[in-house]
Amino acid sequence: MEIFYSSDVSAGLCRLDPEESAHCVKVLRHRSGDEINVIDGAGTMYLCRLVSDNPKGAEASVVEAFPGWGSHPYELTLAVCPTKNNDRYEWFAEKATEVGVDRICPVIGDRSERKVFKTERLRKIVLSATKQSLKSRIPEVSEPVSVREFIASCKGSSALKLIAYCFEGETVRRSVREVLESGGADNVIVMIGPEGDFSPEEASLAVAAGFIPVHLGSSRLRTETAAVTAAEALYFLHL
Amino acid sequence: MEIFYSSDVSAGLCRLDPEESAHCVKVLRHRSGDEINVIDGAGTMYLCRLVSDNPKGAEASVVEAFPGWGSHPYELTLAVCPTKNNDRYEWFAEKATEVGVDRICPVIGDRSERKVFKTERLRKIVLSATKQSLKSRIPEVSEPVSVREFIASCKGSSALKLIAYCFEGETVRRSVREVLESGGADNVIVMIGPEGDFSPEEASLAVAAGFIPVHLGSSRLRTETAAVTAAEALYFLHL
Repeated sequence: MEIFYSSDVSAGLCRLDPEESAHCVKVLRHRSGDEINVIDGAGTMYLCRLVSDNPKGAEASVVEAFPGWGSHPYELTLAVCPTKNNDRYEWFAEKATEVGVDRICPVIGDRSERKVFKTERLRKIVLSATKQSLKSRIPEVSEPVSVREFIASCKGSSALKLIAYCFEGETVRRSVREVLESGGADNVIVMIGPEGDFSPEEASLAVAAGFIPVHLGSSRLRTETAAVTAAEALYFLHL
Repeated sequence: MEIFYSSDVSAGLCRLDPEESAHCVKVLRHRSGDEINVIDGAGTMYLCRLVSDNPKGAEASVVEAFPGWGSHPYELTLAVCPTKNNDRYEWFAEKATEVGVDRICPVIGDRSERKVFKTERLRKIVLSATKQSLKSRIPEVSEPVSVREFIASCKGSSALKLIAYCFEGETVRRSVREVLESGGADNVIVMIGPEGDFSPEEASLAVAAGFIPVHLGSSRLRTETAAVTAAEALYFLHL
């Protein structure tokens, strides 16, 4: 099933941008009259009929709309520190999108080795994974902020807020399963630290802001694996 | 925590192969008298003292043995068809090892595009992920067999056998969560098909051999994501 993306849907018409138009018309050789599937990235899939096969600006008229197409019954924000190796972060973003995530926030911790993070490539990966996994809503990729800024931005949120970190023995950490199963798993924020973990100050700030310290089991997981494990936990719980 | 691997442990002595010896002595500059951690790949970690710092064949005497170090309370075999892109399979093997898997069996399906599969590189990745995630048992990587051969080899097994495939509507498939929660989740075999799915004949053979058809939720997952999702499901259940 081939999916196209349009950010420009109005008055029953989906307009494809030059890249999507070229893919639709030049690569897949669709012509006016063909049926195509278009997602708006915001949660609706449109079954459409191509009315203009212009390879620089194709247009399709909506035959039927499917709101909530490929959606999941929860809201998940993953705030994850950049990994040293960028591929690993991109991999996490792809897999979390396939499994189900709503917002990916790159956050820079006190101990993050990588302080600069480009979101442009990540947005392309996330769009591609959204299409591939037959979803209509593209996860939001936020511009990077510091861990402290992210914690501050969550203060008013009613979401179940979790912080996964490693300080053995310092804090009583509950398992992510226990916390998710005890309720509130329909709107969750999970914060995952860098290779060197959160700093104690960041952890204290998070706890003060209502984040619950959790562990993800006995395996020592890499940052990107921890992030995917959090997405998988929520997915499994709603399976 | 730095982990070395030795396949040659006997009479209280761990002998490192040339590669591990070079890493220990040349790269990390360990000298006789230093304490090092050595796994035997079979489920035990040894706290050792280096008695020979020969960079081509270092030796360490066992101070203390930790059987079951980093183990998980279940047995999981993942029989997964090779992906078109080899990186994706390697990624799955790394992540499944981090999360917890005991045996990875590359299986070639009727519809597999990739019929040849080399296990040598995969074994290195799995060893590295074992060390990185602080485990002492290295998952076994089998030589590739056909899906039919694999199914036949499972006939006598008492494991809970699951096959994840996509034939919509043809078979009543239960969710992997429902099946795992209904019991037998301490010894599980999961078979994951290629991009083009199992053939109907393979699916029938599997069901006849006691495999339970399952789905992994509503997301359309890539082969490697499905395999990791199965490992994550079992991990979550034992968290």
